[in-house]
Amino acid sequence: MKRIAILGSTGSIGRSTLRVAESYPERFQIVTLAAGSNLETALEQVRHWRPRVISMATETSAATLRSRLRKEGLNDVEVVHGAAGTVRVATHPEADFVVSAIVGVAGLEATYDAVKAGKMVGLANKECLVAAGELITAEARKQGKPLLPIDSEHNAVHQCLRGGRIEEVERIWLTASGGPFLHTPRSEFASITVEQALNHPTWKMGRRITIDSATLMNKGFEVIEACRLFHIPPAKVEVIVHPQSTIHSMVEFVDGSILAQFSVTDMRLPILYALTYPERIPSEMRFAVSDLRHLDFCPPDLKKFPCLRLAYEAVEAGGAKTVALNAADEVAVAAFLEGTIGFNDIPRLIEEVLDATESGKLESIAQVLAADAAARRSAHERVARSGRSTRKTGRLRATSFA
Amino acid sequence: MKRIAILGSTGSIGRSTLRVAESYPERFQIVTLAAGSNLETALEQVRHWRPRVISMATETSAATLRSRLRKEGLNDVEVVHGAAGTVRVATHPEADFVVSAIVGVAGLEATYDAVKAGKMVGLANKECLVAAGELITAEARKQGKPLLPIDSEHNAVHQCLRGGRIEEVERIWLTASGGPFLHTPRSEFASITVEQALNHPTWKMGRRITIDSATLMNKGFEVIEACRLFHIPPAKVEVIVHPQSTIHSMVEFVDGSILAQFSVTDMRLPILYALTYPERIPSEMRFAVSDLRHLDFCPPDLKKFPCLRLAYEAVEAGGAKTVALNAADEVAVAAFLEGTIGFNDIPRLIEEVLDATESGKLESIAQVLAADAAARRSAHERVARSGRSTRKTGRLRATSFA
Repeated sequence: MKRIAILGSTGSIGRSTLRVAESYPERFQIVTLAAGSNLETALEQVRHWRPRVISMATETSAATLRSRLRKEGLNDVEVVHGAAGTVRVATHPEADFVVSAIVGVAGLEATYDAVKAGKMVGLANKECLVAAGELITAEARKQGKPLLPIDSEHNAVHQCLRGGRIEEVERIWLTASGGPFLHTPRSEFASITVEQALNHPTWKMGRRITIDSATLMNKGFEVIEACRLFHIPPAKVEVIVHPQSTIHSMVEFVDGSILAQFSVTDMRLPILYALTYPERIPSEMRFAVSDLRHLDFCPPDLKKFPCLRLAYEAVEAGGAKTVALNAADEVAVAAFLEGTIGFNDIPRLIEEVLDATESGKLESIAQVLAADAAARRSAHERVARSGRSTRKTGRLRATSFA
Repeated sequence: MKRIAILGSTGSIGRSTLRVAESYPERFQIVTLAAGSNLETALEQVRHWRPRVISMATETSAATLRSRLRKEGLNDVEVVHGAAGTVRVATHPEADFVVSAIVGVAGLEATYDAVKAGKMVGLANKECLVAAGELITAEARKQGKPLLPIDSEHNAVHQCLRGGRIEEVERIWLTASGGPFLHTPRSEFASITVEQALNHPTWKMGRRITIDSATLMNKGFEVIEACRLFHIPPAKVEVIVHPQSTIHSMVEFVDGSILAQFSVTDMRLPILYALTYPERIPSEMRFAVSDLRHLDFCPPDLKKFPCLRLAYEAVEAGGAKTVALNAADEVAVAAFLEGTIGFNDIPRLIEEVLDATESGKLESIAQVLAADAAARRSAHERVARSGRSTRKTGRLRATSFA
């Protein structure tokens, strides 16, 4: 029986993890949950899973949940809240495996503490590797515990890497769907609308990650994550566009052999893999290999998608630069979604923030959070200074940050 | 330093193995060779590699080689011959790794003896698994030594299998180029000429294996080899047509993940993999992943290619049936190449021989060889009885074995 803590239980990955746990009641037990502020979902999860502890985002929502639970006679569930509550959930002595799926930098401290407490950790939170990857992976190596990636690309790489030792890797090939603008001429990029950008061809996802997929920044983050997770230099991580997103990623070994992984596009698969690693257990998530017909590939166009280049530059410099990359992107994407800036302004704004950021090693999660806050301020200032919504037939004028 | 014995040193795989050894002189030493009857090539190989022992096919060629070597002052190379000579090469105490690459049943005894002597064995000889697979794999398991496949498909499977345990395998997917008649209507199969059948789209190979690729019998043999090599039932081995032959094979695991292997189509790659396993060492055989564009797949048509069905039936029955399958195919292909029978007669003849063969467990290599001889006699009789060359505008009339 594996005892699981979920950071971000009411989010998409959190709910998928619970569905996996539900399918294998003899294997998995949910011991602690960190929910957001969705009270009803949290309440249902407590009713169903009876965890030892649940943490809510705020003191108020924790108090409400506590009184609701008391009314239902569920007095044995401890309700905590905030950052300290999340840490308590992540480091609970009964938890063997921590699923880190809180979106944003909010989950950093708790994930780091889980690793320090010697837990197996499944990572679904991008920031853990993009912003705090150097710290967290160093700690995991110290603990001698693997970090298991819960996203289709790095999970695929993790699987392919079983075909050899890490020193035998020539290159990691991350596949990219190419996003909705793979075939859009560069000249039309300035007039890309929010609606167009939110229309991702393969995956249904949240708004920010959908825009990050459209700019290929998401793939840039994945390059950084791959470097940190697998202790490999950026020069050994490549991106190849694969519109069907069937192959989730590939590993090329020094002898010239390449291993590729594919499967149905269902997040429960990498979750199951992470939860059961190094075992594999039967699932019903079957890819119909006999229905396989065509797989297409092409190289990414770095001129159309400068975000990918920026990610390589940031991870090359390391430290505060990748923190700034993530923070600036979050601000820029939000501004784009609000109609304040144009599509081409996203990479422009990020590049400006990166240029204004000193690269420097970060020694603690506190320093990561400080660098994150500084980059956000810098990005917000730049948006405020020059962003102006000029809606005309649903399109946004590209603004300049010169 | 790995010390290598090569059974079949003057053949294609043998020569590729020597090229690999030449590229890594600090890693590999050639200690013994079993050549065929190509005296000049054998002589060159002795000059270059100075093996302890070389075996020739016949007493005459051994005597000639011995006197030529004496003239050159190469007195320290022992020259032996025949079946006993091949066994001596395969079981030489200084050999760590035996490459089994003698075509046909001639290499069976020596390969079996090498396994019994506790050598690591790289298998490039189809008959070792198709005809004597049950015996050889049982012995390898007893010795606790892996059998390493030296052909692109099983080598690919071997690599993919590193992603999990054998009990975690749902299916093995062997890819097939589909051969030159993938798109030829079934109605035209009766009039397929030798020239058409020898025109393989992807690989340049010997005449028999090229015809076996055109009938898909080669893929059928590979199904049998996969069953034996990986101890997996025929129901778990599938074939998928992949005309580019880029992906060499795939393994589907019980959790729904699929691993696929690809590389350049150069036999030195699986040879290198086998020789260095479980290590991987750098090679210059690079597949340009960034040039990857399209991969196509479709299911095989068992009506057009009954040989594939026959292979499944033979391995299901086991024992003498797979011996007969191989023997009958060899006779049938030779008859087709001589113009004695038509293309559609190949599976017909094999099926008749299979039907006339009692399935039964074979307990020794001697029994395998006896079953092989019996099936050959049966096939030859059938060819003689009904085969009649009727050349007309380069085409052969389909004959009947009714």
